[in-house]
Amino acid sequence: MSEIRLYDNAVGLTEGLKELAGGRRAFAIIDSALTGGTTTGLWSDIFGDNVIWLEADEGLKSLACVEALARTMLEKGVDREWLLVGIGGGITTDITGLLAAIYMRGIACGLVPTTLLAQVDAAIGGKNGVNLDGSKNILGTFREPEFICICPELTQTLNVAERLCGIAEILKAFILSGQWDKYRSAVALWSQTGQTRPDAEVAAATEAELIRAAIDIKQDIVARDPLEKGERRLLNLGHTFGHAIEKCSGGKVPHGLAVASGIILAAKASKALGLLDSATLEQLRRDFQALGLPTGTDIAPDELIEAMRNDKKKSGEAVRFVLPTDSSAVIKVMNPEEMKDIIGGKAWD
Amino acid sequence: MSEIRLYDNAVGLTEGLKELAGGRRAFAIIDSALTGGTTTGLWSDIFGDNVIWLEADEGLKSLACVEALARTMLEKGVDREWLLVGIGGGITTDITGLLAAIYMRGIACGLVPTTLLAQVDAAIGGKNGVNLDGSKNILGTFREPEFICICPELTQTLNVAERLCGIAEILKAFILSGQWDKYRSAVALWSQTGQTRPDAEVAAATEAELIRAAIDIKQDIVARDPLEKGERRLLNLGHTFGHAIEKCSGGKVPHGLAVASGIILAAKASKALGLLDSATLEQLRRDFQALGLPTGTDIAPDELIEAMRNDKKKSGEAVRFVLPTDSSAVIKVMNPEEMKDIIGGKAWD
Repeated sequence: MSEIRLYDNAVGLTEGLKELAGGRRAFAIIDSALTGGTTTGLWSDIFGDNVIWLEADEGLKSLACVEALARTMLEKGVDREWLLVGIGGGITTDITGLLAAIYMRGIACGLVPTTLLAQVDAAIGGKNGVNLDGSKNILGTFREPEFICICPELTQTLNVAERLCGIAEILKAFILSGQWDKYRSAVALWSQTGQTRPDAEVAAATEAELIRAAIDIKQDIVARDPLEKGERRLLNLGHTFGHAIEKCSGGKVPHGLAVASGIILAAKASKALGLLDSATLEQLRRDFQALGLPTGTDIAPDELIEAMRNDKKKSGEAVRFVLPTDSSAVIKVMNPEEMKDIIGGKAWD
Repeated sequence: MSEIRLYDNAVGLTEGLKELAGGRRAFAIIDSALTGGTTTGLWSDIFGDNVIWLEADEGLKSLACVEALARTMLEKGVDREWLLVGIGGGITTDITGLLAAIYMRGIACGLVPTTLLAQVDAAIGGKNGVNLDGSKNILGTFREPEFICICPELTQTLNVAERLCGIAEILKAFILSGQWDKYRSAVALWSQTGQTRPDAEVAAATEAELIRAAIDIKQDIVARDPLEKGERRLLNLGHTFGHAIEKCSGGKVPHGLAVASGIILAAKASKALGLLDSATLEQLRRDFQALGLPTGTDIAPDELIEAMRNDKKKSGEAVRFVLPTDSSAVIKVMNPEEMKDIIGGKAWD
């Protein structure tokens, strides 16, 4: 498993990175959104000119990009003894992870996710990958990086939607593991501070603890099922509905927000199936609203059902739904049409 | 470790492949050199139209080719439950191995090497990869395929140089492991039968045994050192000189023949350093000549030394040489200039 370290601030992070490099030469792929920020000087202190600044964009997630990065590394003389570090959001960490997995048949890799979403989800668990035409993450590997450094201070520049995406994934982790105390603590914190990163020291410490707890939940599940043959699928809570919403919106609804809607829709199904108390469903809905998270979608149920079916066309009609229960979550495999009947209603808003 | 199976003939092989697939759907990448051969009907019997015929050529070994193959597989509906089989020489097995390693983050892979060289070397040991510009195998992984099927009958169509390349790698395995009885048996067999595959049943059985023994030597070493941190480097006997010869000849000298010259040059160095008996060196040289293998090169020593240096420019001046001894082989790290003094002479022919 990857070593995961949390740092209070960017100075501590850069010190930590030097220690983790342990004398190895290091090469970095850094999201160019971090250019000119307060940390730019710190990065050049560690990596010198062994840096590629990446204009991270979903369209960049391709094998051609991986090849271009490898070419530059080869020109700079990077060999198997070096360390490769990816610094940025999920796009940057996904690309860097794959690059490290295949460059000279694998070099050491460290990740520094700089969005809340990447800190609790994309960078954790060893999945990396790039897209092929319209298919997301179809080319990649399962390979744990050597270490992952988390510094919540780096997420300060996020816009509201970006932060909410991370918050949705954190809540997902607490719900699927049945850690309702952590869930309530998260709702309390982020309802109070609004959607920006808390300034006060105590609140910042609470936030760091919640991030760590969400990471631990994912790490524990991944340790038991690294190749997603069973339990790891629970991490897809909210994702079957979420992917359909992303797809039908033409990518306009960001991943984390689509997942938030998906969690509430899954909870509705759980309630209908008697897996979840109706008071819990209502509480979830109120909490999500208080946090500014969506709780449904104005896309027609028929359209979503169709999108789910197309997504899985090749492996038969049945689709895997993760449904929250009062104590954790369960996986139900069913035809999307059935799900429509279970949730009912003309709109899922 | 991969399961390795030997088959007497192509019919047995196809039966075996069906058994190994075990009900899974299977997709094949097949070297188009095998089109129209006696086996074409057998392949279509197993794979139907789930086949891509590959015009295997060193120039094809690129990420772009891997991506194009993945695109076709995606269109054909290949998912993580399928089995991918690569059938052909080292180019085909190298590309297929990498494709299987990254397609949907890894699908099951089987290899059917159809050249002697791929049967004893390229397809064994889990290395796969493609080239980047001029750098060979720079992008790839270490990943053992699920199984490797060896059918010496498939190599009947090889030309003489192709067969000799495989014979050189087999002799290399016996020399570096100090299995001189196997070495002598190999020399005896192939001196008798010439460079074509033996027709007589007894000789064919001996050949199959020698192939199996060479594979076992490689497998044992790889099992102890899968990531080539130490002992696996012994498999590079003849390769430091060999790569330099390939490079200086502009790729005109095939890999296996360059390695044959490299083995004799390494043996000369061993003799000079007192690691190898001079009678053994002379015997090796006579045997190689009897088999039609080269025992030196007309490229000037200075040119070879320069090529070795450039190859390793980035990690300092010293280069790793594997030197045969009377009982196995040792690794010596030294400046290529030193090696020139050790071997001596104005030409290394």
